[in-house]
Amino acid sequence: MAKDKDMRRRRLPPSVSARLPKYYRTLRELIGTDILRVSSGELAKRMRLTPSQVRQDFSYLGGVGQQGYGYNVKDLYSAIGAVIGIPRNYSAIIICRRQQFGSALAKDPCFSTRGVNLKYIFSEAGDFAPSEHEVGITELGTRAKFSSPAYERAADYCRRTCADIAVLACDRTEADAAAEALESAGIRGIWNFTGKDLSCDVPVLDMNLSDMLLRLCCEITAETDE
Amino acid sequence: MAKDKDMRRRRLPPSVSARLPKYYRTLRELIGTDILRVSSGELAKRMRLTPSQVRQDFSYLGGVGQQGYGYNVKDLYSAIGAVIGIPRNYSAIIICRRQQFGSALAKDPCFSTRGVNLKYIFSEAGDFAPSEHEVGITELGTRAKFSSPAYERAADYCRRTCADIAVLACDRTEADAAAEALESAGIRGIWNFTGKDLSCDVPVLDMNLSDMLLRLCCEITAETDE
Repeated sequence: MAKDKDMRRRRLPPSVSARLPKYYRTLRELIGTDILRVSSGELAKRMRLTPSQVRQDFSYLGGVGQQGYGYNVKDLYSAIGAVIGIPRNYSAIIICRRQQFGSALAKDPCFSTRGVNLKYIFSEAGDFAPSEHEVGITELGTRAKFSSPAYERAADYCRRTCADIAVLACDRTEADAAAEALESAGIRGIWNFTGKDLSCDVPVLDMNLSDMLLRLCCEITAETDE
Repeated sequence: MAKDKDMRRRRLPPSVSARLPKYYRTLRELIGTDILRVSSGELAKRMRLTPSQVRQDFSYLGGVGQQGYGYNVKDLYSAIGAVIGIPRNYSAIIICRRQQFGSALAKDPCFSTRGVNLKYIFSEAGDFAPSEHEVGITELGTRAKFSSPAYERAADYCRRTCADIAVLACDRTEADAAAEALESAGIRGIWNFTGKDLSCDVPVLDMNLSDMLLRLCCEITAETDE
């Protein structure tokens, strides 16, 4: 039976996996306001999609909701959480050139509030656990300099204690070598802030700030020219 | 004639404006290696798209390239740059809760290397120009505290000297008020790091770190379950 259910879950297209986190967030907001049943129309409005897009997206989840009755919000929340992998408690490490970046990102609630365990930050000037991130930059800066690049120390760490996600923000000239080292050390996904496109076998989520800024410029230009 | 040419440029779909920055980057790499003519097939390979997707994307640019002759790389680079708005030299300000974030982002080459002039950073603990960003956090932290929120000071700044893009990283509880204040002060686009969905009339580029992290988790989970 379990197998049948899994069979019904088809491979997620990237556009759907890109939308699932927002569904997850929207459903949590509904639960927070005690709304426990929701129609595809209502969800579509909150997601700024059409109801048929919502139903289409949910067809990838394998049997949630019944036509005409709307969706049970908590069931849907769990189903989407399972597809995202929330119960798997993924762990993460940050590899960065500038400690300031690692420290700023470590303070972002994106890890703690989403059940991803941020374990360690490796930077050119020193390595530290997130619990130490209140330490001032100057103090960290005086730590012993390392002879190996941050990504090699991170790969060693993965071999010893294992981590699922590498947040990669090293210098772009090191990006390929870092991705290769981390992949062979068992990293299962890379959040790529280097600005360099990577060729990896594991999933990579590109976070190219320059591309994103230009995308916004492009939309501003289009508005101006209308 | 100019009008005719403009007429041929159709409204950009979001998927195309999302890809234009990568085309722009890819073409710059080609110019850097003295490749001055490129086929849609070669570009497609570098962009990880199909040649027909590339031709379809370029149909929005209004008359670049000739069938069978490939594209003149420099012409294409200028045409895409114009659609993005590179020659308009947009200016930007950062509004953030934590100075550390503003300081880290100000050091990112995304502004300087893309011709976007980062003018000022407003944070809860102090406001500073990017040229001052080497000042240590502790030193900045001792500056006078302000009675108004950072976004109000930023909106005042926009009214006085004008800025095109607001990088918004204030607390999510302030996000709507900040967006409204900035929009009415003349901001033309918002790069939204608050994690809150905004309702604005100006273009908004969402940079929801939690959503992005979960998207990567989702792709890792999908790989594991295959």
